[in-house]
Amino acid sequence: VRTRPQLLLDNGGDLFVRYLEEPYDGLLGGTEETTSGRMRLEPLRDRIGLPVLVINDSPIKQFAENRHAVGQSVLESFMRITNKSTGGKRVTVFGYGACGKGVAANFRNAYSVVSVVERNPVLRLEAMLDGFLVPERDEALRTADVVITVTGAEGVVTVADLPLLKDGTILANAGHFPWEIDAAGIEAAAEGRVTVLTGGHMVNLAGPRPLGNSIESMDLGFALQTRCLEAVATGAVGPESCVVPVPRAIDEAVADGFVAL
Amino acid sequence: VRTRPQLLLDNGGDLFVRYLEEPYDGLLGGTEETTSGRMRLEPLRDRIGLPVLVINDSPIKQFAENRHAVGQSVLESFMRITNKSTGGKRVTVFGYGACGKGVAANFRNAYSVVSVVERNPVLRLEAMLDGFLVPERDEALRTADVVITVTGAEGVVTVADLPLLKDGTILANAGHFPWEIDAAGIEAAAEGRVTVLTGGHMVNLAGPRPLGNSIESMDLGFALQTRCLEAVATGAVGPESCVVPVPRAIDEAVADGFVAL
Amino acid sequence: VRTRPQLLLDNGGDLFVRYLEEPYDGLLGGTEETTSGRMRLEPLRDRIGLPVLVINDSPIKQFAENRHAVGQSVLESFMRITNKSTGGKRVTVFGYGACGKGVAANFRNAYSVVSVVERNPVLRLEAMLDGFLVPERDEALRTADVVITVTGAEGVVTVADLPLLKDGTILANAGHFPWEIDAAGIEAAAEGRVTVLTGGHMVNLAGPRPLGNSIESMDLGFALQTRCLEAVATGAVGPESCVVPVPRAIDEAVADGFVAL
Amino acid sequence: VRTRPQLLLDNGGDLFVRYLEEPYDGLLGGTEETTSGRMRLEPLRDRIGLPVLVINDSPIKQFAENRHAVGQSVLESFMRITNKSTGGKRVTVFGYGACGKGVAANFRNAYSVVSVVERNPVLRLEAMLDGFLVPERDEALRTADVVITVTGAEGVVTVADLPLLKDGTILANAGHFPWEIDAAGIEAAAEGRVTVLTGGHMVNLAGPRPLGNSIESMDLGFALQTRCLEAVATGAVGPESCVVPVPRAIDEAVADGFVAL
Repeated sequence: VRTRPQLLLDNGGDLFVRYLEEPYDGLLGGTEETTSGRMRLEPLRDRIGLPVLVINDSPIKQFAENRHAVGQSVLESFMRITNKSTGGKRVTVFGYGACGKGVAANFRNAYSVVSVVERNPVLRLEAMLDGFLVPERDEALRTADVVITVTGAEGVVTVADLPLLKDGTILANAGHFPWEIDAAGIEAAAEGRVTVLTGGHMVNLAGPRPLGNSIESMDLGFALQTRCLEAVATGAVGPESCVVPVPRAIDEAVADGFVAL
Repeated sequence: VRTRPQLLLDNGGDLFVRYLEEPYDGLLGGTEETTSGRMRLEPLRDRIGLPVLVINDSPIKQFAENRHAVGQSVLESFMRITNKSTGGKRVTVFGYGACGKGVAANFRNAYSVVSVVERNPVLRLEAMLDGFLVPERDEALRTADVVITVTGAEGVVTVADLPLLKDGTILANAGHFPWEIDAAGIEAAAEGRVTVLTGGHMVNLAGPRPLGNSIESMDLGFALQTRCLEAVATGAVGPESCVVPVPRAIDEAVADGFVAL
Repeated sequence: VRTRPQLLLDNGGDLFVRYLEEPYDGLLGGTEETTSGRMRLEPLRDRIGLPVLVINDSPIKQFAENRHAVGQSVLESFMRITNKSTGGKRVTVFGYGACGKGVAANFRNAYSVVSVVERNPVLRLEAMLDGFLVPERDEALRTADVVITVTGAEGVVTVADLPLLKDGTILANAGHFPWEIDAAGIEAAAEGRVTVLTGGHMVNLAGPRPLGNSIESMDLGFALQTRCLEAVATGAVGPESCVVPVPRAIDEAVADGFVAL
Repeated sequence: VRTRPQLLLDNGGDLFVRYLEEPYDGLLGGTEETTSGRMRLEPLRDRIGLPVLVINDSPIKQFAENRHAVGQSVLESFMRITNKSTGGKRVTVFGYGACGKGVAANFRNAYSVVSVVERNPVLRLEAMLDGFLVPERDEALRTADVVITVTGAEGVVTVADLPLLKDGTILANAGHFPWEIDAAGIEAAAEGRVTVLTGGHMVNLAGPRPLGNSIESMDLGFALQTRCLEAVATGAVGPESCVVPVPRAIDEAVADGFVAL
């Protein structure tokens, strides 16, 4: 007899979708790590009928991991891979979500002059008031010594942009998928004139001796997950909590525990 | 015959409450400026039955006015009123909402060492990762050269705290109401040992030659209000938009207009 | 019988020059506040033959007053006079001496994007590595929302530059003399298109309710002066200390006293 | 016949001292890289009688290498070795010379709360006005999550300090010699309670895959050296330039060349 899990730690919605295809007794519920998983599972709420807590919507994830930890690890990766000075560089960041905010702030704090390219006008205004240049996209590519994408979108910088780039420009992707920069196309056409770090794969998880996000941000993520699973396992949350954010009390307990360390 | 307004610019909910007491024909709807007005009007939605757009929930208000403009004007007011150096000072900020974030960041940027006191553990963790000390409240009072409240709550610092304060401590309130610091009680008991700026009234709207928030933040607020009223007046939003946030298209148009200036 | 002073607090060298024209018995020596006074008195050393300590060359004056206090008071004055947001502004600073460093850093910290124009290539490199744009002078004028001069030189910005300036540009001088910006010429020709604050006079000592430098920086300056005069009066320094920097022991005593406050 | 060099690139004075022990014809002069070499060679000026230019006293070395590049590489090394968050950490820096200033500023910018311990009262005051805590040394050790020494002195932190340190404290030396922290003694006595990175050796030149200072700072150093050797080789400087700073014109040419890149 195959033992079926009582708790699912889902990451993208696959596990709960499979469960619906082949339901079984004894499942108590679980967690979903990602926002894209949340969007996939929301329409399935009625059919799941079990508690499913979505980790990524926790404010702690947003500021501790997406903003601070990604910001730090992208800066660290740039320095680790290139050994270049950040001072005196013009850095263009595509995307001003939580991750983009962290990347932009970390480079500004490291004495770069940072431009932000962002389609959403409200976020573009926020970037401007936060002390960043917000030029048109082409101008932002023309002036850049370093280009970092962190948008989630595909084809942010392509081979068509090559004529805009200065000799020696360094490009890096910090978004989840390696499709933001057309690394292969650009490197083939560039004849060594520009460099795409780590083949356009997530720059803070690649290159020599990659470290990923800081230990503390991982700890916070694991603590959120553990506490959420505990709540599901002990029945502290019920079926009404199907595909909902982390309960506020759990956010608070995790935060309290970290500050007290 | 008295002419009744077709549009109400409400600020706290008074105007719409009065309208419900004495309704009249021809009212098209309006705007509500504040979050507290929104909370007051939400239960009255069915009775109002007209478009009412709530300005303060716009992300633009949150970052442009509450964080940046209040942060700047509190720093400016501290300097204008005291002519003290901000460098080399220990500053304790009570409250880490949007306004508190702005005040804390502006003083840190001005070379102060800033402690944040915040009851919400999630915000306290955010303050810690943002580079602030997060001591216990009494310790935060004991070490402070400057204490700034911006919580919205009553009785944040009272005469009972006087023994904790160092000689020469400067206290200021940046919250909306003058009840956060018991200015009268403290000044009476302090015998000149500490100072409460502007009698505990909003420090950035009082004192000699007060300026309030920056022109740009006021412009953004007025632009939001004007565009919202236009949407109500032209029927671009209908009764289904009763006590709802600023429509995203308006946020975007206002932001776009500002960046393009 | 006219009483002659035993100690001179000179400020520009006038008092010691007059003393040499009409010497008298009983003068013990004194202090000279400024660098320009030091340069004037150095060739007169042999004739003076008394201890004269030069205050401005103290490292304390350089960082506490010229960098930090001037930086803070120029920022404060800009906000006090204009009530403009510093965030989202492009600010061009002419001069990267101690004062210029303070002005540039204070505006960068206040969320402006700052360009530095500096003729000395070594200081220009320092500005670049410190996180500032270092464009050519004309480009720096073309992009500026705010222009601040702090060079000591004459005619830094003149009416000939008017075509370069955007509508609405605000100009201010933070250098000692009102000759860095041709305020009269520019305002006459500009037809309201640009503004020169406080008629081109030192922006942190003019305008409505000017405050000057912070109390703490003044205290440090007075402490240096007092301790130096005490050393002259008590014979702790002798004629070999004629037109020399503040003795290191005095710098250290003043610094120690301030930190311990 | 052994060929003798016409130019010496000295690093600590050894080469010129050996030359004096065994002089030969044809030496044109050379450069000395370090300040300690300069101090060793100054008394030998009359005997050397050739142009010797001292690189380290160049202002470019002070700000580009000692402040910016060391600050960046120590921060990078901390992150690379530990993968710890810098935000939310209390960091104590011993020493506020050019290197210490860079280390302290880089960690403050990375969201740490930084304390500076410095014996020189004038530098301690500067640290205070620059936004750092300046507690007594023992207090600075008691509160630290991270301790970084960069003083040049011996025995800055020893096993006697172990009782002051919190569990989990991380120590690192960024000074030239591995004698600032008694790494062996502390690690033997600590029983895993604290960690000394890279055995107390220069943290930015050790550990896994060390990178040292940024390429740009190395380039600037090499450019200074090359231009100085050229000046010696072409006779642009003569014997009167024996153990003197880099000529201003060379500093300016190197800076100009870098900014123009």
